[in-house]
Amino acid sequence: MTVAELEAFLAAEFPQMFNAASGLHVESARFHGARVRQAFRPEFLRPGGTVSGPTMMALADVTMYVAVLASIGPVPLAVTTNFSINFLRRPAQRDLIADASLMKLGKRLAVGEVAIRSEGHDEPVAHVTSTYSIPSGYSR
Amino acid sequence: MTVAELEAFLAAEFPQMFNAASGLHVESARFHGARVRQAFRPEFLRPGGTVSGPTMMALADVTMYVAVLASIGPVPLAVTTNFSINFLRRPAQRDLIADASLMKLGKRLAVGEVAIRSEGHDEPVAHVTSTYSIPSGYSR
Amino acid sequence: MTVAELEAFLAAEFPQMFNAASGLHVESARFHGARVRQAFRPEFLRPGGTVSGPTMMALADVTMYVAVLASIGPVPLAVTTNFSINFLRRPAQRDLIADASLMKLGKRLAVGEVAIRSEGHDEPVAHVTSTYSIPSGYSR
Amino acid sequence: MTVAELEAFLAAEFPQMFNAASGLHVESARFHGARVRQAFRPEFLRPGGTVSGPTMMALADVTMYVAVLASIGPVPLAVTTNFSINFLRRPAQRDLIADASLMKLGKRLAVGEVAIRSEGHDEPVAHVTSTYSIPSGYSR
Repeated sequence: MTVAELEAFLAAEFPQMFNAASGLHVESARFHGARVRQAFRPEFLRPGGTVSGPTMMALADVTMYVAVLASIGPVPLAVTTNFSINFLRRPAQRDLIADASLMKLGKRLAVGEVAIRSEGHDEPVAHVTSTYSIPSGYSR
Repeated sequence: MTVAELEAFLAAEFPQMFNAASGLHVESARFHGARVRQAFRPEFLRPGGTVSGPTMMALADVTMYVAVLASIGPVPLAVTTNFSINFLRRPAQRDLIADASLMKLGKRLAVGEVAIRSEGHDEPVAHVTSTYSIPSGYSR
Repeated sequence: MTVAELEAFLAAEFPQMFNAASGLHVESARFHGARVRQAFRPEFLRPGGTVSGPTMMALADVTMYVAVLASIGPVPLAVTTNFSINFLRRPAQRDLIADASLMKLGKRLAVGEVAIRSEGHDEPVAHVTSTYSIPSGYSR
Repeated sequence: MTVAELEAFLAAEFPQMFNAASGLHVESARFHGARVRQAFRPEFLRPGGTVSGPTMMALADVTMYVAVLASIGPVPLAVTTNFSINFLRRPAQRDLIADASLMKLGKRLAVGEVAIRSEGHDEPVAHVTSTYSIPSGYSR
């Protein structure tokens, strides 16, 4: 799926998540990988000026899903089975960029990792490993 | 901290998360544990009629935080360092109830688990283990 | 499978792991759960007098496998797909007791948790969540 | 610490793990990273001809520890607090090579990832994220 196809699919299937106000944008997608941007929004902040953990969790989860879609096509019912995140550094008050990369794309399971960075920074603020269950008949 | 103290603290510190519209309620809290309810809202749904993963992640994260607060008092800068979730079953279109229990409350780290259930159901829809880092000087 | 059937199956399939010298014993098994004991051996110690992490990892992994076998029968090719352990306390120089409990037993995946305790102690020294992939045709 | 210093330290501190029979060798070490080889031994096999999960867990754990030692010097009491592994592919009946890379080296915690490959293969057989707790006074 191309970036335009992915954004159209996500806007249709997840209208509460992908809409004009959410600030989520698919930056790139390829076989086995994807990059998604979350525009900074002040309501993501928590005390101390850091971006909330759940904001990063949601971004990582959707980026893994985009990487799966980009690799096997539109699979609306693929579901996360395991998701593990390590928070590494305090994010800046800037956009977040998530890069997902699939380490395995099997018949039943896709396993990937996601690194999240604050725009303009090299070191990741969070790192995720995640497993998606692929419905029968959809694997490549 | 009592439930009333916890809700006042959370509303002051996390106004974007704990407010009249969010549907989050501290049901109970004790030394080493807490229960938090997330009222059902249609915008949590994703295709297939299931509640989104990030909704459950956010609920589990806040419930662990409430259990930490209930155990060591108001610590605004305690932060999650690791969070791992297994999605077990499709949630019903009902309120979610999260029960957190601390397995360790050390000087530096608190480690707990959270089970999330759909209201009226016995079997958990998701299970989380999570680690919080406690700032120096706050541990009991 | 009964405890005697489980021990015979494990000794036949995993002779390097289940033998007279290994100190592993199935204490009990039931639908959705199992208890396995690891007898204390001085070679498990690492500096500071604590039992090594990999000793606890191996014990937890086999206990989950016994719980799966006890629930769906002999499945030699079931494999762990994800295994996550939190080390909570320094173990005593005593036997370790691991209790596994399945949280989900689906057609493709079994998800469980394992608590490890030092014999005679109430508080867990480690906690594991783990996922097993079940070969097609074996699930109940 | 150099490779020679690391191997001498490990042989002295962990004689049951690092000895002539164990087949573990530090191949390289640098600030924030390390590579450790586990020579193939038939007793690692389990049914189906695959290398056992606990063999890979132990290799990943020691490789992370070597990366920590190489970065902050000899710290005998650094301990793993969290260890999460995804098994991706069936390993070959060959040596295993583990590459650890630290994503964060803080005052209290080091967080890293480890990829394990069968010698001569490009794709990882397992991927680990792990957190080490650093005793007070040892961090850089």
